[in-house]
Amino acid sequence: MSTYGPQIEVAIARVRAEITRLHAELFRNGLVVWTGGNVSGRVPGAELFVIKPSGVDYADLAPENMILCDLQGNVIPGTPGADRSPSSDTAAHAYVYRNMPDVGGVVHTHSTYATAWAARNEAIPCVITAMADEFGGPIPVGPFAIIGDDSIGRGIVETLAGHRSRAVLMANHGPFTIGKDARDAVKAAVMVEDVARTVQLARAGGDLVPISQDSIDSLFARYQNVYGQAPQGALK
Amino acid sequence: MSTYGPQIEVAIARVRAEITRLHAELFRNGLVVWTGGNVSGRVPGAELFVIKPSGVDYADLAPENMILCDLQGNVIPGTPGADRSPSSDTAAHAYVYRNMPDVGGVVHTHSTYATAWAARNEAIPCVITAMADEFGGPIPVGPFAIIGDDSIGRGIVETLAGHRSRAVLMANHGPFTIGKDARDAVKAAVMVEDVARTVQLARAGGDLVPISQDSIDSLFARYQNVYGQAPQGALK
Amino acid sequence: MSTYGPQIEVAIARVRAEITRLHAELFRNGLVVWTGGNVSGRVPGAELFVIKPSGVDYADLAPENMILCDLQGNVIPGTPGADRSPSSDTAAHAYVYRNMPDVGGVVHTHSTYATAWAARNEAIPCVITAMADEFGGPIPVGPFAIIGDDSIGRGIVETLAGHRSRAVLMANHGPFTIGKDARDAVKAAVMVEDVARTVQLARAGGDLVPISQDSIDSLFARYQNVYGQAPQGALK
Amino acid sequence: MSTYGPQIEVAIARVRAEITRLHAELFRNGLVVWTGGNVSGRVPGAELFVIKPSGVDYADLAPENMILCDLQGNVIPGTPGADRSPSSDTAAHAYVYRNMPDVGGVVHTHSTYATAWAARNEAIPCVITAMADEFGGPIPVGPFAIIGDDSIGRGIVETLAGHRSRAVLMANHGPFTIGKDARDAVKAAVMVEDVARTVQLARAGGDLVPISQDSIDSLFARYQNVYGQAPQGALK
Repeated sequence: MSTYGPQIEVAIARVRAEITRLHAELFRNGLVVWTGGNVSGRVPGAELFVIKPSGVDYADLAPENMILCDLQGNVIPGTPGADRSPSSDTAAHAYVYRNMPDVGGVVHTHSTYATAWAARNEAIPCVITAMADEFGGPIPVGPFAIIGDDSIGRGIVETLAGHRSRAVLMANHGPFTIGKDARDAVKAAVMVEDVARTVQLARAGGDLVPISQDSIDSLFARYQNVYGQAPQGALK
Repeated sequence: MSTYGPQIEVAIARVRAEITRLHAELFRNGLVVWTGGNVSGRVPGAELFVIKPSGVDYADLAPENMILCDLQGNVIPGTPGADRSPSSDTAAHAYVYRNMPDVGGVVHTHSTYATAWAARNEAIPCVITAMADEFGGPIPVGPFAIIGDDSIGRGIVETLAGHRSRAVLMANHGPFTIGKDARDAVKAAVMVEDVARTVQLARAGGDLVPISQDSIDSLFARYQNVYGQAPQGALK
Repeated sequence: MSTYGPQIEVAIARVRAEITRLHAELFRNGLVVWTGGNVSGRVPGAELFVIKPSGVDYADLAPENMILCDLQGNVIPGTPGADRSPSSDTAAHAYVYRNMPDVGGVVHTHSTYATAWAARNEAIPCVITAMADEFGGPIPVGPFAIIGDDSIGRGIVETLAGHRSRAVLMANHGPFTIGKDARDAVKAAVMVEDVARTVQLARAGGDLVPISQDSIDSLFARYQNVYGQAPQGALK
Repeated sequence: MSTYGPQIEVAIARVRAEITRLHAELFRNGLVVWTGGNVSGRVPGAELFVIKPSGVDYADLAPENMILCDLQGNVIPGTPGADRSPSSDTAAHAYVYRNMPDVGGVVHTHSTYATAWAARNEAIPCVITAMADEFGGPIPVGPFAIIGDDSIGRGIVETLAGHRSRAVLMANHGPFTIGKDARDAVKAAVMVEDVARTVQLARAGGDLVPISQDSIDSLFARYQNVYGQAPQGALK
């Protein structure tokens, strides 16, 4: 039995439901195939996060089989779903939560075009206004890192700490995105694939026309301050 | 409380329903991701138009959260939806309605291939008959313009006034389309992405074969006069 | 009131239902956008065919708004749907039925990749076995022809008469396909887009490896005689 | 009437249901058009396998029209579905089951990007971690083989025996995949298209960065031993 107080239990239940719903968004947006991809969300007010189990069909995901972990990535015994293994990327998610306290959600996919840029170890240049709005400049490349220890988490944090972008293209692997909450990180995952596709196709047809740094700065500033009601992107 | 007469109130209700339905068409046709894209429609017989709220999920759009604006882009207080912010492109839509009296609908998306041409600041050449039918020639590029004042609206109007095309590719940004009503503008948004994709893919595989100007003129004239029952395209 | 005997009336009703269902297949296979594309089917035992009305939403198509025509392309007055205009490609369909007595169905789309080859006036080379099976060799290009008289129909018939292929890429326009019945023509429309896409993408990545003429002949012969129970393709 | 004991009859029923469900997965993942593609599954404990009938619509597939065959590819008379012809690729499936006793499932599709590599007779290089995980290295090309005798089966077995990859690109034809059961082979079919698309698009945009053989080996070893609970891939 879990021993968190009623307020935290309510928060956990809410995050389990939200994470389940957001995995459906990954699928609906064409970012994942088979059982690939994962979303996690921090439990507000606790040193905990909720993540997807490993290798389970998207159709079978439900709040009660999502897995509750501490910030070391250990499954909390006796909680719903604790009999299964969490996503094989759990260590990377945990590392981000430990080292980026403002991050409330993390997403990883192998979405097609973002992974194509990653296979070239090439940052996506900022040549469309939607990208300036959302990411404030280019999408950076992170180091090549083997799964299974902290090296992916470290690569994400080193690349994104202090960066405007909420997305990093891990070399030869694929995109990881962060956000103020899980929904914001999923939005970044949707948008990074969208801009990866648009910019690759734009360049395939001829020379790209750059946007000036001043215009990029102005677009990013406006989007953080005007669009919607809470700050996005830079996570401050 | 709104103080329009019953006839105008009926027209407003009809446009709210139509605009809601047309946003679903944007989504179903794959032209938008997340909360991106927007459709507006002029209220016949009034100095008003209806537009989408900013940053709301497509699944949550409903007639009662669409937003009623005057032709300056001001939200009409006390009307349904008026407690939310309208689309961040509202100023551009309003500018078009003020300056192009025959326009009854405006659409903006970041659809992939149209935005790819926009990122190259390159007009789409007219090499397929469907494009001659629908647009009467190439799809033009509009100026680079920062969001937030009249500059996007001005760029749209300057490019499309007197032009056969109902679509403009705003530089490094994406397509805006106009129509005699909102449905006609959505049709133009669907067709501009369709031709942007087909022509880019055609050219990627080898040399394009041009269509003669005479044939383009003849196809456009037939389509305006024969296809369907009301004039399309040139908005006269 | 229609004056055909009960047997023909039953055949007409069956073709109306079939043509309605097959338009949904065009849409479901991603071959058409908006109200584009059209399928027609010959009424067995009569000098008649059934075709889609012009400019009607796919969701609104129903057996009773399909349009019955004679082989000159004239709408039969007094029959269901006769108050609307038939597809603007009706003259082309009628020409094919008049001049190719074994053809029972005709389909036209602007499907993306097939239209891309058409915009280059380039035949699709036969480099995959599925294409040898289905079309027995390359997909040919037909002449550039303006809509509205017999020139499209003539171009289809001149290109496909005696040809193994049931598909022709009309120059700068798009694919037309024929079949022993409407379903067979829709299958050809699905397959021509599939091979147009696969072969273009294959060539985009490097040099194609040809298939020998002997192998193509053997694959085509087998598919006509072994696969399924009735002859396909060559329409004999 | 079938004369297998109750235990085998239960196994047959289970495989019929599973194979039906997995054909829907092929369709849902966009790997097949029209009636193309086929999945088969070995019946555990018997010298039998279940395969799809030839040329039947995906919507009409059901457990009772799946076809039971012996390992020579002969339909078992008197069993449900035995009045129809099995998939025209049945001989190839049977050859694999006879010669690879650890294989429990076989899948064939003409999925777009995998077939594009096949049309170039080009192996897919291993440049993304998901591919190292799943296939342990490049996806190999098999020989050109005409349908109808053992030559396709022989080509599959000669290429995949002792290979880490569960997928082979048969030259100018398309992918065949194997697995410990039918679901595992379908997973391989989904993943081979996913990596075929990602790697082709990656290379289209510039130079690929290789992954070292050591990293590939380490990723493959981890995935076989850690991810999920049963061994995948190498089928041992």
